[in-house]
Amino acid sequence: MNMESLQKNSLRGKLASGLDALFNPGSVAVIGASSTFAKWGQMILSNIVSGHFQGKVFPVNPREKVLCGLPVYRHIQDIPETVDLAFITTPAHAVPSILEGCAEKGVKGVVLITSGFSETDEAGKRLEKDIVSICREKGLTLIGPNTMGIICPYAGLFATGTHARPRKGSVAFISQSGNLGNQLIDWAEQQGIGISLFVGSGNEAVVTCTDYLEYLEHDPRTNIIMLYIESVGEGRRFFEAARRINRKKPVVILKGGRTQAGQVAAASHTGAMGGEVTVFRAACRQAGLLNVAVPSELLDLSAGFSSLPLPRGNRVGIVTLGGGWGVVTADACNEKGLVVPDIPPEIIETVGRYLPPFWSKGNPMDLVGTRDPDVPLVAVEELLKWEGIDAVVSLGVVGRFGLIRQMIQSTREVDPSASPVFLDQVEAFSHRYEEKYTTRIVEFMETYEKPVIGVSLAKTDEGTVRPVAGRRYSGVFYQTPESAVNVLARMVSYQAFIGS
Amino acid sequence: MNMESLQKNSLRGKLASGLDALFNPGSVAVIGASSTFAKWGQMILSNIVSGHFQGKVFPVNPREKVLCGLPVYRHIQDIPETVDLAFITTPAHAVPSILEGCAEKGVKGVVLITSGFSETDEAGKRLEKDIVSICREKGLTLIGPNTMGIICPYAGLFATGTHARPRKGSVAFISQSGNLGNQLIDWAEQQGIGISLFVGSGNEAVVTCTDYLEYLEHDPRTNIIMLYIESVGEGRRFFEAARRINRKKPVVILKGGRTQAGQVAAASHTGAMGGEVTVFRAACRQAGLLNVAVPSELLDLSAGFSSLPLPRGNRVGIVTLGGGWGVVTADACNEKGLVVPDIPPEIIETVGRYLPPFWSKGNPMDLVGTRDPDVPLVAVEELLKWEGIDAVVSLGVVGRFGLIRQMIQSTREVDPSASPVFLDQVEAFSHRYEEKYTTRIVEFMETYEKPVIGVSLAKTDEGTVRPVAGRRYSGVFYQTPESAVNVLARMVSYQAFIGS
Repeated sequence: MNMESLQKNSLRGKLASGLDALFNPGSVAVIGASSTFAKWGQMILSNIVSGHFQGKVFPVNPREKVLCGLPVYRHIQDIPETVDLAFITTPAHAVPSILEGCAEKGVKGVVLITSGFSETDEAGKRLEKDIVSICREKGLTLIGPNTMGIICPYAGLFATGTHARPRKGSVAFISQSGNLGNQLIDWAEQQGIGISLFVGSGNEAVVTCTDYLEYLEHDPRTNIIMLYIESVGEGRRFFEAARRINRKKPVVILKGGRTQAGQVAAASHTGAMGGEVTVFRAACRQAGLLNVAVPSELLDLSAGFSSLPLPRGNRVGIVTLGGGWGVVTADACNEKGLVVPDIPPEIIETVGRYLPPFWSKGNPMDLVGTRDPDVPLVAVEELLKWEGIDAVVSLGVVGRFGLIRQMIQSTREVDPSASPVFLDQVEAFSHRYEEKYTTRIVEFMETYEKPVIGVSLAKTDEGTVRPVAGRRYSGVFYQTPESAVNVLARMVSYQAFIGS
Repeated sequence: MNMESLQKNSLRGKLASGLDALFNPGSVAVIGASSTFAKWGQMILSNIVSGHFQGKVFPVNPREKVLCGLPVYRHIQDIPETVDLAFITTPAHAVPSILEGCAEKGVKGVVLITSGFSETDEAGKRLEKDIVSICREKGLTLIGPNTMGIICPYAGLFATGTHARPRKGSVAFISQSGNLGNQLIDWAEQQGIGISLFVGSGNEAVVTCTDYLEYLEHDPRTNIIMLYIESVGEGRRFFEAARRINRKKPVVILKGGRTQAGQVAAASHTGAMGGEVTVFRAACRQAGLLNVAVPSELLDLSAGFSSLPLPRGNRVGIVTLGGGWGVVTADACNEKGLVVPDIPPEIIETVGRYLPPFWSKGNPMDLVGTRDPDVPLVAVEELLKWEGIDAVVSLGVVGRFGLIRQMIQSTREVDPSASPVFLDQVEAFSHRYEEKYTTRIVEFMETYEKPVIGVSLAKTDEGTVRPVAGRRYSGVFYQTPESAVNVLARMVSYQAFIGS
């Protein structure tokens, strides 16, 4: 081992603890803070303040006095208290001297939002080398440059350009594209997916995606890792880390630049080449990583892996309120290598007690539009109890409320004889029933340690993930059966891989 | 040609004109109308009335006097005016005599909601044969049985169990599953997809999906046909019709029961076997039909085909506000067989005038988060003008408003010095800009006869399809690039097929 790699390794040891301090700061500065709407110094500052960051916030700008109601400092060195983390949004040419100032102040780390470095031209590349030297020399940990920020929900720190506020959870997301990352965080918020950390890693001049990965290995809040990657600097180190970590915490990867057109696009925007795709794919397969094709799949898998127990095998029970959805779900299962086994007469008899004589009597269990609210729960639990089933897909119970509400609305409008009190009761009951159903299937998952994946079949106001207070698992309700079945199939493969 | 087929053909001639009268009725009866919330007779009646059906509505029920404020008739024969179409929701055993009554009354056609026929058991099969005989004998056109209803937006007739109200448009949807069909109609409403007709075809005892297809061939309001099919009775006739019609009006098919598990499920719920899947697939390919894998794809293709000009080739220009989305879109294009060509220096120079020097200068055109509202339009139009491009995918302009609104909200909350008037102006401008952008790209599509497919990247309150008054095409904004690219690839294949 030569001096350089010794130095690198020692830097890495420091990095993990350094990152921990960065992602749990007691105080932050925003250097380049601004009052001009939609400038980066304004977007980051207003996001941190309105996101209710728990620590202290110090705006820095030599030409301002007060921003967001806070006193502004001319230089970072003028701040009279400790600063753990500094965000920098000034023009690129000013960055080296600001970094020197940060080091002098004893700032632990820097998120360098500023662009205009290696992603642009030769001058930018040189400037990036300069700042790396400063960081190495002064022991500064640097995220970026050319990042769109970070989110640390447990610290109440929302410091991205877009102002999404995902809830606290167990999914960490490292993205080499800030733009794509920010948008996916917005989706995560809408889908109710809980986030432990989001980092737009930018140009990765100092801290690389492998460093983040190694940090997340020991982050107790993180159970699932999502990565959007265009290029990996040290492929071997990356895959060694990813393979090791994936056995404990599923690593879900979207690789941008899988095709010729995608590589050209990636090269023009990050300045880095993506490397050989077939090699990347083979390495992912070997490490058992969850390689996905599209951004929405990152979210789908995160929702499922963070909320459900892993299935022990590939045998699926399907419970549906209508035949067609059962058919398309059964098709999706078979096409993804999942089995939809025949179910034994005892289960058919038990569930059949609640249903008209001409019900499907098979798997999918088509409950022929039953209105008895207990029947879907009976069907789901009977399937879970049976040793011949590893997972249940439940279609159309949670999500039906929107359709019921529409019907109630029509009835109110056109039927003067309909009792408003009765309609209110139906509405309230239907709404509560979705909560009750969610709670029961989450309890079932704890009892039987098998996943129940819901399909809402509707665009609902509530998210994909619906946590239940005090429970280890959460309800998960995808809009479409294909999403549910895809996630289930990936969970089956993952379980088979880590069990092998 | 024997007597039976002569009779069948003559019946078919009558069917087409018969269906036209059914789907544009001047008056409807609901036999089995009810005041009990969520009974079929209540759901259908309240939907028809609250949907503002333009004609007359006659509830029929021997035990009621007034329903939805309308006088109720004991029997259909008691109605003193003409009845064009009757919905029947009574128990199955009562249906034969009701059909006789309908024939006596001179009703043109019947939508038989009632289940309990060939989809259940031997007795149900016999009962279905009986009603078919009655219909043949009396010349009654019958939709169903075991259907969840029909929607004729141009007649203002919403007669399904769920109360979705899709807007008028050019997409007809025939579904052999009522449950799945009704839910997809709800999606169509949310996505802004305009509907010319929806029919849940049920057991197809009299009118079959091929009959509907032949009817739609000559329906001037219908330009796109969506089918959800589990089994086709007369495969040869169906594919002959579909092949002929598909050359004029794209026929998009989701086949339920493609796998062993799906076939079992389909057989248990319709009582019909699905036939050989590979044969079905080959026949679709030969006829150039748009065979899709999942329900959401039916909607995606309907949105695109009903709103955009067909691309003349497979060369795509990509315009993005951020690098990562450009990369994943370029990947999706290549993976679907679309080309992302290098663009000539003239276009780079023209667009470059509006951008900082380090912009991507290639395809995808990454406008590096520009805030100049004219630049995306310049980029899109420059690409459309160039003969080397057949279609443009535009990412992230329409859809950004939600993120901007969040930022404005944060700023209002935390920055007492921010001008509320200015923030209101920004909000109003940003909102109007999305409309302006939509209008401009719709105008571009008319000028250049090339499709521009938008990607919102966000879950927006507005639909996928955004019509512009007085224009032939509509704005289309999918949430994800993969949906946009998939639709574009299918349009390219379709154009190649019908042009060959």
